[in-house]
Amino acid sequence: MALMIEAEEMAGYLDEVFPQVRGMFEIDELTEERLVMRLHVDEQHLRPGGTVSGPSMFGLADVAAYVATMARIGRQALAVTTHCSIDFMRKPAAGVDLLAEARVLKLGRTLSVTGVLLYSEGSGDPVAHASLTYSIPPARG
Amino acid sequence: MALMIEAEEMAGYLDEVFPQVRGMFEIDELTEERLVMRLHVDEQHLRPGGTVSGPSMFGLADVAAYVATMARIGRQALAVTTHCSIDFMRKPAAGVDLLAEARVLKLGRTLSVTGVLLYSEGSGDPVAHASLTYSIPPARG
Amino acid sequence: MALMIEAEEMAGYLDEVFPQVRGMFEIDELTEERLVMRLHVDEQHLRPGGTVSGPSMFGLADVAAYVATMARIGRQALAVTTHCSIDFMRKPAAGVDLLAEARVLKLGRTLSVTGVLLYSEGSGDPVAHASLTYSIPPARG
Amino acid sequence: MALMIEAEEMAGYLDEVFPQVRGMFEIDELTEERLVMRLHVDEQHLRPGGTVSGPSMFGLADVAAYVATMARIGRQALAVTTHCSIDFMRKPAAGVDLLAEARVLKLGRTLSVTGVLLYSEGSGDPVAHASLTYSIPPARG
Repeated sequence: MALMIEAEEMAGYLDEVFPQVRGMFEIDELTEERLVMRLHVDEQHLRPGGTVSGPSMFGLADVAAYVATMARIGRQALAVTTHCSIDFMRKPAAGVDLLAEARVLKLGRTLSVTGVLLYSEGSGDPVAHASLTYSIPPARG
Repeated sequence: MALMIEAEEMAGYLDEVFPQVRGMFEIDELTEERLVMRLHVDEQHLRPGGTVSGPSMFGLADVAAYVATMARIGRQALAVTTHCSIDFMRKPAAGVDLLAEARVLKLGRTLSVTGVLLYSEGSGDPVAHASLTYSIPPARG
Repeated sequence: MALMIEAEEMAGYLDEVFPQVRGMFEIDELTEERLVMRLHVDEQHLRPGGTVSGPSMFGLADVAAYVATMARIGRQALAVTTHCSIDFMRKPAAGVDLLAEARVLKLGRTLSVTGVLLYSEGSGDPVAHASLTYSIPPARG
Repeated sequence: MALMIEAEEMAGYLDEVFPQVRGMFEIDELTEERLVMRLHVDEQHLRPGGTVSGPSMFGLADVAAYVATMARIGRQALAVTTHCSIDFMRKPAAGVDLLAEARVLKLGRTLSVTGVLLYSEGSGDPVAHASLTYSIPPARG
């Protein structure tokens, strides 16, 4: 699927619509094939033992699905997550960033479905596997 | 299912194992039937427009499932979330706390399954519906 | 939510749109509060040991969500399941029917979300817990 | 992950443990990377219009996750599905078989997680996307 928004413009758009998480996420790669999104892990994302918290992993998967979808449909600030199913499979490594690899599996008129794998940077085994659905508001005529 | 830990003791246990979220959650009710858990919504949980963020809703559902499970099996700091499926159904109301109503649907030897409904305080329509699975480490002999 | 289709009319409608499963399902109760739907368990639904198969449980949950939704929106043969999350929690009892208790949690303009609990007849412990999303085609003007 | 059971032996094992679906499924490919499993679509799997039914899609995803897991852990007839999350994204094509491409994402001591994409034969767009969890009974000493 062709991109309507490239990485640099998307970064600016994210800062604009989600000012409260500015600096937390970064787009490592954005192509027609996939998106790789980075969570800059710091103190606020950790649980005792240095592992990344569940809500932080959820948040990264959600932002990645949002960005991957927006890149294909253009700015739709009203698109909302309607479902997330996430399997937590391994404990994230301590002291490294978390990466999300997202693929849009379906882009319909009113729904998108995105598959996301989360990895600790430098590791090949996914720590989590998610599927997210976004509801896309009907275009206004 | 009989409770092994009552509300007051559980509150102290939460502060101990999750010191980084101290003061964020509160147990409104803990009985054999159900748990009601409160997220004290403040600035850090909000998105533009005053709505509660997805990660905050996920976090509340996850803590509620953890507390409901721990209350029945006793302290098992190693229990971990292995799955969460969550439907976001309505926009949370602005300016009020979020409540989670949790019921343990299955308590097995190695897995628990908890159903959670999230409500904005004062509203009867659920904003989200979740199912969470916890993996319970085998008891040591 | 008020019902647009009552139990008897719904039974006829099901026979009409799903002729291939005629006689397999029955509506035990259909009120504004909930739907109870029965799977007449026979040989084709069983696995070795007499337990009901996963696809049969999925099928019952799916039909129950469909009926509960249709009862509230009226005949919409084009409504389709877009998501199902199902937890299999206990082995169904051998030799008895399976019952689904369904509640519509959200009825939106384009999506419905239904929670379903499955029970072996005569038992109080749910064998499965599901959440299903239906996509509802936009009304024609 | 190395295979403990190859395709041919697995086919015989399936016939043995699931005699009631003999001839319905076929292993097209079984490697360390992935499994491709085929549902021979016939009359019993169809809905009006020639599309494959939801329970048939669920059943294929479930068998594929089972086979992919068994191939890595060896015969464990007691392994059971504890969770399935499935997104139905497109209508399957009429008149062709359905293929499942399965990858084991996590193989733990007590749980496995398998990601599955379903395709209509000859099409590159997935019709469904599933994640399945199997509970693996502890080995006896």
